[in-house]
Amino acid sequence: MSHVQLSELRVRYAESDQMGVVYHANYLVWCEIGRTDFIRQFGISYAELERRGVALAVSDAALRFHAAARYDDRIRVETRLTDVRSRAVAFEYLIVNADTGQRLVTASTTLVALDRAGRPTALPTEFRAQLQAAR
Amino acid sequence: MSHVQLSELRVRYAESDQMGVVYHANYLVWCEIGRTDFIRQFGISYAELERRGVALAVSDAALRFHAAARYDDRIRVETRLTDVRSRAVAFEYLIVNADTGQRLVTASTTLVALDRAGRPTALPTEFRAQLQAAR
Amino acid sequence: MSHVQLSELRVRYAESDQMGVVYHANYLVWCEIGRTDFIRQFGISYAELERRGVALAVSDAALRFHAAARYDDRIRVETRLTDVRSRAVAFEYLIVNADTGQRLVTASTTLVALDRAGRPTALPTEFRAQLQAAR
Amino acid sequence: MSHVQLSELRVRYAESDQMGVVYHANYLVWCEIGRTDFIRQFGISYAELERRGVALAVSDAALRFHAAARYDDRIRVETRLTDVRSRAVAFEYLIVNADTGQRLVTASTTLVALDRAGRPTALPTEFRAQLQAAR
Repeated sequence: MSHVQLSELRVRYAESDQMGVVYHANYLVWCEIGRTDFIRQFGISYAELERRGVALAVSDAALRFHAAARYDDRIRVETRLTDVRSRAVAFEYLIVNADTGQRLVTASTTLVALDRAGRPTALPTEFRAQLQAAR
Repeated sequence: MSHVQLSELRVRYAESDQMGVVYHANYLVWCEIGRTDFIRQFGISYAELERRGVALAVSDAALRFHAAARYDDRIRVETRLTDVRSRAVAFEYLIVNADTGQRLVTASTTLVALDRAGRPTALPTEFRAQLQAAR
Repeated sequence: MSHVQLSELRVRYAESDQMGVVYHANYLVWCEIGRTDFIRQFGISYAELERRGVALAVSDAALRFHAAARYDDRIRVETRLTDVRSRAVAFEYLIVNADTGQRLVTASTTLVALDRAGRPTALPTEFRAQLQAAR
Repeated sequence: MSHVQLSELRVRYAESDQMGVVYHANYLVWCEIGRTDFIRQFGISYAELERRGVALAVSDAALRFHAAARYDDRIRVETRLTDVRSRAVAFEYLIVNADTGQRLVTASTTLVALDRAGRPTALPTEFRAQLQAAR
């Protein structure tokens, strides 16, 4: 039974655009908040992972925009881990209005592990095991 | 024979992240620069389209990250129109390093036309015809 | 005795730059979170104010950067209202590391009230009275 | 006679907010574009300076907002170097609408030189001399 990480945030004015809604690229930022919270939940923070010399770089992202978030809305990001491999992990995200439950955006990202020189590398064994347990 | 719009920009410091590369969400901003330039090329600017009460909202986006852009790099965005329908348009993007030609990101977006109330609407006939001619 | 509004946030990866610290322009975004929270505390949200046709536009901003915030740091923004006039309000901000208490940034902004046409206008009487009471 | 660096850019949709104008924090990003261009003009790029282990961190910033920029406007940033010291430099900026010449924002920033450990350090002698010549 897979873990679902819940993250909450409130829409910032800076995230709105002149259409009066959240500018679409910002949802990728919220996805990152979701997976940062997911990873922190499992014993090692992403900040710590980077200090150990392993970065996770997004290699693929896909987003579907169902409805718009607006300034000052309370938002909930639901993050699921969908795949863990030796050099890559994949997450799915459901972004909803936290007050109404309305579905706003569904998204997925794949991330690859890179060493300090930017070359593909294996995820640290312990980190990978922690994530596996959370799937 | 379809038109390929070329846009050039230089990477801003604000667009870098602590991995030393461009933060991934910014490529969506560059795609928007590409399609803004594409649309301006064909007789009506997107700003003018919005003044007439029609907005184009991104409904789907997909990105593949092949290599990283870095601060101060010169970037070229190549934008192609891939579909024009009564209420939607689709674009593809190739983002490369303008000096080396290295492929950085490939992306696609679909946009739907919305009226001032945020409801789906038809693209203005003239605008649609202009885009059709550019495919 | 003036009210001090406390807002908390966690630094996003998107807010870091290649120097490994928070990009300086983002502190203005955090100041806005602080004053949004301050205003919400006093009976009317800023979102509601805008729906009534009055926007608050920043006319002056000053920031002093004492120390750097980093990705994943927990941040506290302390917001004080320092002046309320018929057409303008002023706030001061102290941004600190929420865990260590270290002072990161001090800032001040003045905001002027604008109507829907972008012309200076008076703050709604009730709103102004609410803020006066909070000074 | 001091050098005035001219930089041009076009306002991005992502830079607008729901007030229909450019979100105020973005002007700091444009100031950075101005000083990046200024520095590149004088024989060493800022990117190169960082590769040599010296970063310039903003220690003070002040902005006055006179009029609003809007999506798709063409913008000109005029950057002047106002002070060069052993460990700090100061710039002033005038941001105008490139088509109408309307003054939008005046700003100033002070930057301090930091080594890789984030400690104050002296500007490289050659770099300092180049800047001195440009004042």
